[in-house]
Amino acid sequence: MHIVTFRPAAEVGMLLAEVDTPCLLLELDAFERNLKRLPESLRGPNIRLRPHAKSHKCPQIALRQIALGAVGVCCQKVSEAEALIAGGVDDVLIANEVVGAVKLKRLVALAQQARVKVCADEAGNVRDLDAAAGAAGVTLEVLVEVDVGAHRCGVAPGAPAVALAQQIVSCRHLRFAGLQAYQGAAQHVRQVAARRDAIARAVDDVRNTTQLLGEAGIRCDYVTGAGTGSYMFEAISSVYHELQAGSYIFMDADYAKNDWTESGIPQFEHSLFVWTTVMSATAADRAVVDAGLKASSVDSGMPRVADYGDVEYVKASDEHGVLQLKGATRFRVGDKLRLIPGHCDPTVNLYDWYVCIRNGRVEALWPITARGAVL
Amino acid sequence: MHIVTFRPAAEVGMLLAEVDTPCLLLELDAFERNLKRLPESLRGPNIRLRPHAKSHKCPQIALRQIALGAVGVCCQKVSEAEALIAGGVDDVLIANEVVGAVKLKRLVALAQQARVKVCADEAGNVRDLDAAAGAAGVTLEVLVEVDVGAHRCGVAPGAPAVALAQQIVSCRHLRFAGLQAYQGAAQHVRQVAARRDAIARAVDDVRNTTQLLGEAGIRCDYVTGAGTGSYMFEAISSVYHELQAGSYIFMDADYAKNDWTESGIPQFEHSLFVWTTVMSATAADRAVVDAGLKASSVDSGMPRVADYGDVEYVKASDEHGVLQLKGATRFRVGDKLRLIPGHCDPTVNLYDWYVCIRNGRVEALWPITARGAVL
Repeated sequence: MHIVTFRPAAEVGMLLAEVDTPCLLLELDAFERNLKRLPESLRGPNIRLRPHAKSHKCPQIALRQIALGAVGVCCQKVSEAEALIAGGVDDVLIANEVVGAVKLKRLVALAQQARVKVCADEAGNVRDLDAAAGAAGVTLEVLVEVDVGAHRCGVAPGAPAVALAQQIVSCRHLRFAGLQAYQGAAQHVRQVAARRDAIARAVDDVRNTTQLLGEAGIRCDYVTGAGTGSYMFEAISSVYHELQAGSYIFMDADYAKNDWTESGIPQFEHSLFVWTTVMSATAADRAVVDAGLKASSVDSGMPRVADYGDVEYVKASDEHGVLQLKGATRFRVGDKLRLIPGHCDPTVNLYDWYVCIRNGRVEALWPITARGAVL
Repeated sequence: MHIVTFRPAAEVGMLLAEVDTPCLLLELDAFERNLKRLPESLRGPNIRLRPHAKSHKCPQIALRQIALGAVGVCCQKVSEAEALIAGGVDDVLIANEVVGAVKLKRLVALAQQARVKVCADEAGNVRDLDAAAGAAGVTLEVLVEVDVGAHRCGVAPGAPAVALAQQIVSCRHLRFAGLQAYQGAAQHVRQVAARRDAIARAVDDVRNTTQLLGEAGIRCDYVTGAGTGSYMFEAISSVYHELQAGSYIFMDADYAKNDWTESGIPQFEHSLFVWTTVMSATAADRAVVDAGLKASSVDSGMPRVADYGDVEYVKASDEHGVLQLKGATRFRVGDKLRLIPGHCDPTVNLYDWYVCIRNGRVEALWPITARGAVL
């Protein structure tokens, strides 16, 4: 039983002005600069890059990241891994716990097709992973997720992490692969110094844990983590081996509010936009666009209006966005404009296609094949 | 170029406990009671019901509403109307403006297949509607949208509305169908008295406008509007002919915060849930579930935890939800529970399927064929 999604809002070759709205624009020049800028910033530190594909959900983008040196990608869900592997990606870390018999069966089936790693933070789940791997006749690589300050998933650093690693080592069908140590809570801390401090504490937690692992006779040569907000701090820490930044390719409005001064992290450009039409303009100080909650996620604040400094997107309802006209700019019904999403990841998840733009024309349409992949 | 969405999280006949997560549950008994309860509450006032399908985006649900007496459904987008008409609905009001040549062409194509009405609030758009209808050889029914207090789309009541109606009357390929008068800003006002007052003002605006229309020789026998929060006030106003409530079938956490005392609006039940699994439980006062921002919209507040009064969903990240355990309840990894979405409409838009449950078993899977229909 399959259903087919809507056709894209554009055709290749169209002028941007002709593209129907709302849709998700990817400005290829800015996107490609971002794509290169992060690996280039890592030429000093000897560290691998495994970008997070939960941001883009698109094999076409994952393959471009890999072509620029990434060792593979991360994702959060088994169904995302399925979409990525089906799209040609051959090395995926599910940087998350996978729970439940249905998902474990799908996970180990994937491990027969590609290199797949997964995280764990609980003994019962490790037993389930071992049983599923055994039933499928595979050896599964499992990382211990350590809570390095985000207080979400992950075992406490130190002894609890070592105990879980020991259990994984003892499992016949599992291989202990290393530590997942992502400090998610630090990524959107605005001040550079506070972000640096949060990562310094995470680095201490990782160092203590790897030392204890060594004392227990468990070699740990793989520590993975970091996001766009902090990655340079992990990169130069000498305890991380791999970075998981994802949002750098798009740079949303929320990340743009971070201070980056002397962080060592380069300036990424906004490359992802929601293309929208003014559908109503019946008051002098207001215009209404056709992109609301179902076109741009507002969990991290309203979208920002690109290209017009005196216009603010002040209110989103399901299918409408209200623009407040604070200066001289006035719109007519039918005018089209670009919005910078507040938060790229859940915004991308609303769409089936990237409409890829270069020099004001549609150059390509990339399907977001892991859109809706929540299982 | 088509892409195929993910398979549903369940199969018909499965026990609820076996259903994979996260997914969208529709509890059929509560849903069917809600479905009947609204039309039953209208037995006194002589008024038609045209439920808003933007909430459910599913022809299977629209057809059930029509079977219980609804005259058709509303939607907000041409692409939603396409999905509904493809699913067997033959009377759709697009309770919104449709702007741009691409959409107008699709709109008039739909008007050749089913009864389709649309709204307008601007002279240029009316000219475009007329031209598109003429090119397709159809007569399009157009309502004037009046701003009755929501300050979003719509012309001002009174003379501006009459002027637009006169323009529509003068168009060769359009028929003036009536007034769209939805007071969206009133729906979530918590206090009944304040909601009633807001609708009283809207009713005054409508009455003045229809009177002026009459004086201009334009008959107006169709005024449509209202939502779940206020519909009884419009129903007994004697100026509305049709109600557009949508959320009553699901009753989300935000609507449940409204006071309903002596509103005349019956108690609707929560029938829509996000089914989720505890994937991490490494701290005594916390559990993490696998439903985050991509599984439940948080624009109107966090989801509520059903069935456990001492557990609060306090934080959503992309793929995780953090539950605070405030009392005796403790969860183990693998436990499944139900969340009541904060806002039903954008939550439904994240999913491709309703997993329909009765007596703890999957009775049906209904595709959400207008999911993602933003064009």
